[in-house]
Amino acid sequence: MQLGMIGLGRMGANMVRRLLAGGHQCVVYDRSPDAVQALVKEGAVGAASLNEFARSLTKPRAIWLMVPAGAVDDTIAELLPDLEPGDILIDGGNSYYIDDIRRASMLAARGIHYVDVGTSGGVWGLERGYCLMIGGESDVVTHLDPIFATLAPGRGDIARTAGREHASGTAENGYLHCGPSGAGHFVKMVHNGIEYGLMAAYAEGLAVLKGANIGNTGDTIDAETTPLRDPEHYRYDLNLADITEVWRRGSVVTSWLLDLSAAALMKDPGLSNFAGRVSDSGEGRWTVKAAIDEGVPAPVLSSALYERFSSRGNADFADKLLSAMRYEFGGHLEKPAGS
Amino acid sequence: MQLGMIGLGRMGANMVRRLLAGGHQCVVYDRSPDAVQALVKEGAVGAASLNEFARSLTKPRAIWLMVPAGAVDDTIAELLPDLEPGDILIDGGNSYYIDDIRRASMLAARGIHYVDVGTSGGVWGLERGYCLMIGGESDVVTHLDPIFATLAPGRGDIARTAGREHASGTAENGYLHCGPSGAGHFVKMVHNGIEYGLMAAYAEGLAVLKGANIGNTGDTIDAETTPLRDPEHYRYDLNLADITEVWRRGSVVTSWLLDLSAAALMKDPGLSNFAGRVSDSGEGRWTVKAAIDEGVPAPVLSSALYERFSSRGNADFADKLLSAMRYEFGGHLEKPAGS
Amino acid sequence: MQLGMIGLGRMGANMVRRLLAGGHQCVVYDRSPDAVQALVKEGAVGAASLNEFARSLTKPRAIWLMVPAGAVDDTIAELLPDLEPGDILIDGGNSYYIDDIRRASMLAARGIHYVDVGTSGGVWGLERGYCLMIGGESDVVTHLDPIFATLAPGRGDIARTAGREHASGTAENGYLHCGPSGAGHFVKMVHNGIEYGLMAAYAEGLAVLKGANIGNTGDTIDAETTPLRDPEHYRYDLNLADITEVWRRGSVVTSWLLDLSAAALMKDPGLSNFAGRVSDSGEGRWTVKAAIDEGVPAPVLSSALYERFSSRGNADFADKLLSAMRYEFGGHLEKPAGS
Amino acid sequence: MQLGMIGLGRMGANMVRRLLAGGHQCVVYDRSPDAVQALVKEGAVGAASLNEFARSLTKPRAIWLMVPAGAVDDTIAELLPDLEPGDILIDGGNSYYIDDIRRASMLAARGIHYVDVGTSGGVWGLERGYCLMIGGESDVVTHLDPIFATLAPGRGDIARTAGREHASGTAENGYLHCGPSGAGHFVKMVHNGIEYGLMAAYAEGLAVLKGANIGNTGDTIDAETTPLRDPEHYRYDLNLADITEVWRRGSVVTSWLLDLSAAALMKDPGLSNFAGRVSDSGEGRWTVKAAIDEGVPAPVLSSALYERFSSRGNADFADKLLSAMRYEFGGHLEKPAGS
Repeated sequence: MQLGMIGLGRMGANMVRRLLAGGHQCVVYDRSPDAVQALVKEGAVGAASLNEFARSLTKPRAIWLMVPAGAVDDTIAELLPDLEPGDILIDGGNSYYIDDIRRASMLAARGIHYVDVGTSGGVWGLERGYCLMIGGESDVVTHLDPIFATLAPGRGDIARTAGREHASGTAENGYLHCGPSGAGHFVKMVHNGIEYGLMAAYAEGLAVLKGANIGNTGDTIDAETTPLRDPEHYRYDLNLADITEVWRRGSVVTSWLLDLSAAALMKDPGLSNFAGRVSDSGEGRWTVKAAIDEGVPAPVLSSALYERFSSRGNADFADKLLSAMRYEFGGHLEKPAGS
Repeated sequence: MQLGMIGLGRMGANMVRRLLAGGHQCVVYDRSPDAVQALVKEGAVGAASLNEFARSLTKPRAIWLMVPAGAVDDTIAELLPDLEPGDILIDGGNSYYIDDIRRASMLAARGIHYVDVGTSGGVWGLERGYCLMIGGESDVVTHLDPIFATLAPGRGDIARTAGREHASGTAENGYLHCGPSGAGHFVKMVHNGIEYGLMAAYAEGLAVLKGANIGNTGDTIDAETTPLRDPEHYRYDLNLADITEVWRRGSVVTSWLLDLSAAALMKDPGLSNFAGRVSDSGEGRWTVKAAIDEGVPAPVLSSALYERFSSRGNADFADKLLSAMRYEFGGHLEKPAGS
Repeated sequence: MQLGMIGLGRMGANMVRRLLAGGHQCVVYDRSPDAVQALVKEGAVGAASLNEFARSLTKPRAIWLMVPAGAVDDTIAELLPDLEPGDILIDGGNSYYIDDIRRASMLAARGIHYVDVGTSGGVWGLERGYCLMIGGESDVVTHLDPIFATLAPGRGDIARTAGREHASGTAENGYLHCGPSGAGHFVKMVHNGIEYGLMAAYAEGLAVLKGANIGNTGDTIDAETTPLRDPEHYRYDLNLADITEVWRRGSVVTSWLLDLSAAALMKDPGLSNFAGRVSDSGEGRWTVKAAIDEGVPAPVLSSALYERFSSRGNADFADKLLSAMRYEFGGHLEKPAGS
Repeated sequence: MQLGMIGLGRMGANMVRRLLAGGHQCVVYDRSPDAVQALVKEGAVGAASLNEFARSLTKPRAIWLMVPAGAVDDTIAELLPDLEPGDILIDGGNSYYIDDIRRASMLAARGIHYVDVGTSGGVWGLERGYCLMIGGESDVVTHLDPIFATLAPGRGDIARTAGREHASGTAENGYLHCGPSGAGHFVKMVHNGIEYGLMAAYAEGLAVLKGANIGNTGDTIDAETTPLRDPEHYRYDLNLADITEVWRRGSVVTSWLLDLSAAALMKDPGLSNFAGRVSDSGEGRWTVKAAIDEGVPAPVLSSALYERFSSRGNADFADKLLSAMRYEFGGHLEKPAGS
């Protein structure tokens, strides 16, 4: 079927490519004419403006927005004059699901359908397919099924979950209508919250492995430092690239994130290209807020989030206060860096 | 080659089966004669006593212990009189690596080699193979290579990590000599610490999804309870079996633990067979202790461990104290269960 | 000066008493006529309705609301028709500061001033005075200074902070104009967030002391349980009432919350009157949300909050999922309660 | 009575001063002759060597060690030849209680008594008195009572805990015999663990207050950054020195650590003299290890410890791995510092 795509960044462009390869027709728009031209060369229909974009689409239009979460409302506002009742707007970016609820309601008043799609897959989606978590009206989601089926990975050669042979639905194909408006991004939000936790679990564990040789470092004895009690227990120089590789086979911790860790450590065991300033892009924060609203304990997901905050220096004031208190009660001076 | 196996529980018996299928000769012993007989029927050589077991093995003996961590020292002590210099003892259970260091040193004084093997794979190992993390002397580990190669999963059809084509070693085959005595169980310990963190990340996230319908529950207004501010944001009845299934394809959080979660939720979405009393079996605790010795922050791994403690009621006294303080400063009475 | 008080619960009634004792005139209203009569007997002017309440107050009226956070908006709406430009509404309860910002704006449009006051002191405030954190317009806050000065504890005999002799302001007297609308409740919110953290620190530490005798408990050896490695390190039967008492003098952890803990443990060392279901009343949650919005790591405050959630059984689903995963990968069955 | 003091650092010297002021006789030794001379001028008996020190003491000797935890064993070994059965060694430093158990046993074999004393009070102890947590044999502890009574703060003017009028014991006087060998340092260990938690609670909360003005900072919109949703909720420039001061009176969070925070912020609201590299000196680590051995959840105490680790850069490798994973799955590049 035909789909209009607005936003041809990393994700949007690859999704268009996957749709084109699947036999769909794509009308594309981006603020960058070069991005449009690149896809026109690959078979898409280009539009030079949002107005032209809307005019190029068959009614009822199906329009996928793949723009930064902060730009969705503006894009909708700009596009709205060119839309008509029955048209479908799909937000495939990283919107907060609460915005989905609001937008769906606002657009419904104009007869326009709104579908929210949480999309996972990153730069690998073109090849692997995109895992799609979908929220919105059932009949509209059903109408878009050909698009979702193409973008999604499909069943592939992944071992079937016991009992699935008797279950219906599209989950096995890598896309799922999760519920009403917002449900798609809600599920994607929690997906990313989990992702933060998984990543942190690997990162912490590998850091413990990395530190397993501290017994080979000399210790000083002073009132401020606890000497390592049993240095002979920490004399391992472990090969993290090999360890993450061996875990990829038969261990309980196999995962795609482990695959990526193994790849990164194979390239550069010291990870020297990274400073360790870790961004967080919203979903991790929102997941914790949802947990709090629900009264559900989420210590792991929260810790993972806070580690990212700390990695960017955001604990500095609190740390200074700790040092200040220690100075006040004990006259403790800070030790210089590296000690 | 020939291997003696002591301990024919869930793990040990399946490892023998895998070795037999791989063409190795296995001499087996267990305190339960039935367990021995079962494997004799499948081709193993049975022994009725540790002494008979030792006599049945070709020298230098290669003996794998697959007994509970708390029983390893006693088993070694019982076996020791029958061993001779050059023999090899392999502890494939869940020993604390610190015990490995001690045992290796004690046995080396008698000319006996000690190899520690962290084994991951659980009940699935027979089919998938066991991921093996090995510590000990290099030449001894090399001598045992045929055993490890058979027990391990092998390369299988798992996508190759970029750069591995130029690397040597056995990591790709699912077994790895990690370092000197204790290194195998050290790596396995951290592996399990990570496992706890991964499991907790999924569990917390799925609990947030499960709680996404609390907006449909009535709220009461009193000084003790915070009313849910925006109930309309929490009106989703999400299908966790489908969600975990859809994440298995193309998402960032795909993993074997996710596969298992999907399977468990497919069987019983309410998990009604479980009370939620979660055991912890040592490695998670030791990982956190190692992190502390190394001065490496491990908030996620620790939180995961503490959730298990709490699940068994171990936070009760602390909680009572919180209630007692609240009563003292504010006259707050506890609310009854269910409110 | 004159103050009208709406809400004569635990907090409101005692605040009226303290104001009466300080020579102020109080007009009081509560939905419960008995609550009104009780204070009339102590010298307050009672009102049988909000309308009568408003008529009884000298203009410009100064009205203090001491009602549950969930009832503030309704009370304001009901009162509004009787108010006139220049009147002052003070919300002394536990409102979310975001509501203060909204209300102040709404009331400003009608010429009515809104002051938010975070109030700490609990049932002890009548005797100790209330610590007041105030947000609103400077001149309005100044106008109310006599009220705040009476409610607050005053300097008392607390040792002066070095440098305070050169500082101006009311902080030393136990009340503070923190900033514009919402600032009072923002500071009170964080105050409570800190309170949760402090309480949890004591509770966890005391639980560790309580558990110091586990070496006297027998251990079982099985594959599911880690035996206590060094039982001889855990053979202390500690007297928590005495320990909290001794810490009250000269230690680094002296605090009012410690005083309360010592009192509670003196009454009942086993805290047998409490089940350990710990409420949380909003500010702890909001503090964590603010930390997240600011990107400031708050692992301790979050952990303290989550312990309360868990104490009420809210981790149950996550725990069941952990058990379910353990069953799937290892065939582990849950151990029965008490084991 | 007479006490010998070895170790005249910050703590030891002030303890001697307090004992001298209390009418006790003190024989003092330190590796630094200047430290000895300083106290001789104040009335102590100086010793130029450990041997002279031992000879100067009346039998049975009572000797207090106030040396770094890492130097206690060496000091005991050096002193031992000069000791006789019936002598008493008191370790008043920050020893691990497990070492106390070992030392007490070793010294008991020679007829020498060992008493472990956890000492809180820091540089303020001279004036406020030292809170003493004592482990050892009852009759020996009773014998030393005059020393403990003088060092401790005494009842002072602290409000009596309800019920204490009917209780016996010394807890109200600021010293307590907690139990057998190791009990003193065990209780002190947990005391410090709690201290870490309390400090972190204040530090985190104050950091949230400090960040309350982020709404006044401009936001950028890109795919990597979550824009602050409601900047108008974060426009407070809060005075932390005043806020900590106001909390000192009548609030639930009053404590000595709050007093110190108020003092530090009064001196320098920006805490510009501190870099935020926070040391940890053993007890915090041991408390968490004890919690783990006991199976008691201690998320707050652990988080507080990990914040200190992170403050010294110890999360760097884990953070780099997070960035590396993000790069692998999404092509995300780290944002430069300051963004």
